[in-house]
Amino acid sequence: MEIAKIAKKASLEIADLSTELKNQALLKIAEEIETKKQEIFEANKQDLIEAEKLVEKGELSKSTFNRLKLDENKMRDMVQGIRDIAKLDDPVNKKLLVRELDSDLTLYKVSCPIGVLGIIFEARPDVIAQISSLAIKSANAVILKGGKESINTNKKIMSVINSALEKVNGFPKNVIQQVFTRDDVAEMLKCDKYINLIIPRGGNNLVKYIKENTKIPVLGHADGICHIFADETADLEMAIKIVTDAKTQYPSACNSVETLLIHENFTGKDNLLAALQLSEIQLVADPDSWAHEYGDKILAFKTVKSVDEAIEHINTYGSGHTDSIITKNIKNAEIFMNKVDSAGVYFNASTRFADGFRYGFGAEVGISTNKTHARGPVGLEGLTIYKYKLIGNGNIVKDYVDGTKNFHHNDIV
Amino acid sequence: MEIAKIAKKASLEIADLSTELKNQALLKIAEEIETKKQEIFEANKQDLIEAEKLVEKGELSKSTFNRLKLDENKMRDMVQGIRDIAKLDDPVNKKLLVRELDSDLTLYKVSCPIGVLGIIFEARPDVIAQISSLAIKSANAVILKGGKESINTNKKIMSVINSALEKVNGFPKNVIQQVFTRDDVAEMLKCDKYINLIIPRGGNNLVKYIKENTKIPVLGHADGICHIFADETADLEMAIKIVTDAKTQYPSACNSVETLLIHENFTGKDNLLAALQLSEIQLVADPDSWAHEYGDKILAFKTVKSVDEAIEHINTYGSGHTDSIITKNIKNAEIFMNKVDSAGVYFNASTRFADGFRYGFGAEVGISTNKTHARGPVGLEGLTIYKYKLIGNGNIVKDYVDGTKNFHHNDIV
Repeated sequence: MEIAKIAKKASLEIADLSTELKNQALLKIAEEIETKKQEIFEANKQDLIEAEKLVEKGELSKSTFNRLKLDENKMRDMVQGIRDIAKLDDPVNKKLLVRELDSDLTLYKVSCPIGVLGIIFEARPDVIAQISSLAIKSANAVILKGGKESINTNKKIMSVINSALEKVNGFPKNVIQQVFTRDDVAEMLKCDKYINLIIPRGGNNLVKYIKENTKIPVLGHADGICHIFADETADLEMAIKIVTDAKTQYPSACNSVETLLIHENFTGKDNLLAALQLSEIQLVADPDSWAHEYGDKILAFKTVKSVDEAIEHINTYGSGHTDSIITKNIKNAEIFMNKVDSAGVYFNASTRFADGFRYGFGAEVGISTNKTHARGPVGLEGLTIYKYKLIGNGNIVKDYVDGTKNFHHNDIV
Repeated sequence: MEIAKIAKKASLEIADLSTELKNQALLKIAEEIETKKQEIFEANKQDLIEAEKLVEKGELSKSTFNRLKLDENKMRDMVQGIRDIAKLDDPVNKKLLVRELDSDLTLYKVSCPIGVLGIIFEARPDVIAQISSLAIKSANAVILKGGKESINTNKKIMSVINSALEKVNGFPKNVIQQVFTRDDVAEMLKCDKYINLIIPRGGNNLVKYIKENTKIPVLGHADGICHIFADETADLEMAIKIVTDAKTQYPSACNSVETLLIHENFTGKDNLLAALQLSEIQLVADPDSWAHEYGDKILAFKTVKSVDEAIEHINTYGSGHTDSIITKNIKNAEIFMNKVDSAGVYFNASTRFADGFRYGFGAEVGISTNKTHARGPVGLEGLTIYKYKLIGNGNIVKDYVDGTKNFHHNDIV
């Protein structure tokens, strides 16, 4: 795939750009989007005309249509988001370790970009600007594939971004590229020689399809089957408050709760369930599957005999996303947090906190349920890896093997 | 695969063992191996009898035979290696970040085990004890598959390890398991539901086969195509010393140099090449491929016009392992270290330093050329990931969305 090869080349060129130049590029993009926002609205209108027909035919949901639609508010947020990323710390070139191996031999572990990112997202055209900005800040090249419903908007935003980048002296070409078809995606997924990380942003089916069809590492999550366990000693009011928030504050979010586990000796059980129903939550005592993501104000619930049974249920049916215990028993909270094998393990807090902005990362790449590289909400740091720089003075291994010299491994940072 | 499911269960049980208990288990293993070393030698003898026949038939190399053979020295090193791992810092339960999101809501990023490791290695039976120890220290469960030539030794060491672990009160069952056939390996590679990381320890073909046949993340490297670039201003004596070390100190190691790039204006070129030949290095000016790992005292060489050409050659033909520049020009050294896209980028030092022990990690899991998770020599830390623990007091997201409360994101660690 030629575009992937070009991206690889661009990734080597952007890798050691200065923070200043990267930020300058981000601010130029923000400015150019503001200047050309009418052109972007025009392009978006074209997409909306087509999308409206699909909505009428019942082939596109109203909520997808809404996500597709750009307005002044979304435009302002998009531009502000880019400026916010410019303000964040540069995740590249951080000294993670400085160690004298010997008096004249120093090892530096330094953060650096991963290389080429492949981002596949669905019908939210504002994602392009956000992801492009994250890629620039972390000095990665990126190949974007957006939803076909937003193709005109995507093309326009992309051309605005690249026209901004052309105006930035010293900024390499081809850092941000775009592909358009399903066949392109299939090709991308094969390019493990050039693409280093795939980030899908979209529904479960998209993520599952990608995970099944590539050898490139995939950062993200398919399901978000989150649990709350109301322990024997849970405070009733707190339980009502947390479960209601976790289910109703944004039911289609991945960090919304899907299953409530209740200790059999929790005396507040009936009151808790009654309160949830008052908040228009539909309770399901006997679901078809304990691993179903409702994405709606529907909540499965189950009585368990102990914290251990709750943990076992979660580790069996959960998706390793975010799970919370409500209890006054600190010992049980510790057992729960240590034994539940999820990215987020919470004690007396709503699962909805699982989010890069709420964690204070300043930007969110996505939420990962992987067990390697990055887990949980992923900020800019998740788009970096590190390299080891070793600076010597003619040092050879033979001297250390035959005992002429000795390592002293003295950490400076 | 039943064994993988059992391993998953064991991984959840070992996940929160105390440092003390894990170290106690390691010391017990060391003790048990010492006590039963005659039994292990006996088992090894059985393997050696079979192996000798294969050597005679020309079906097994003498060097493989030697690696297969356990003697008092190897046994002592093996036992010492286990005790050394017991002395290392526990990589689990480290607080990587402690952040107050609000006065009553604190986020902890805490290191934790990955889960289940699949380790596939060739004919070095001492690897079993080492890998089992690394797995225990990092609180991972492990499924081991050793070379068929060492099957009796492997089975015996394994049974000694597990008999030691049975004597440790509170240590869970099935943390260390073993499989034996190629079919088992094929099964393992399919178990992405239960196995979280595959680590191949062996030749290029083994690693390539595994990378091609699994969706589980693979930690390791296939090729080690390392380069040294003698810049225009390289010190001749230093260049001779470093290249000789990097090629001859252990020619079959992955961090040995395979290609020497020489700046066309380096006046010491002829003297350098003559000196290398005096050290019995066979020089190849016109290799069949620039991406070949000789693993022997053979060195390809090429003249380049600039540091940029050297970098481009390395990024095109290298394997992202370890590459070194010899120069007096600090600017060129910086360009080289920033632009060469390898795990190790060295300045005036031999590529042979790429090694977990030399970097001061205390133990080495392997050397990774991946661009995600872990890169370069990998110590115990590479066998961990992290989880986020969030401790609240009934906190809900709604309060922060409607402005009743505000995040203050105050870092404590």
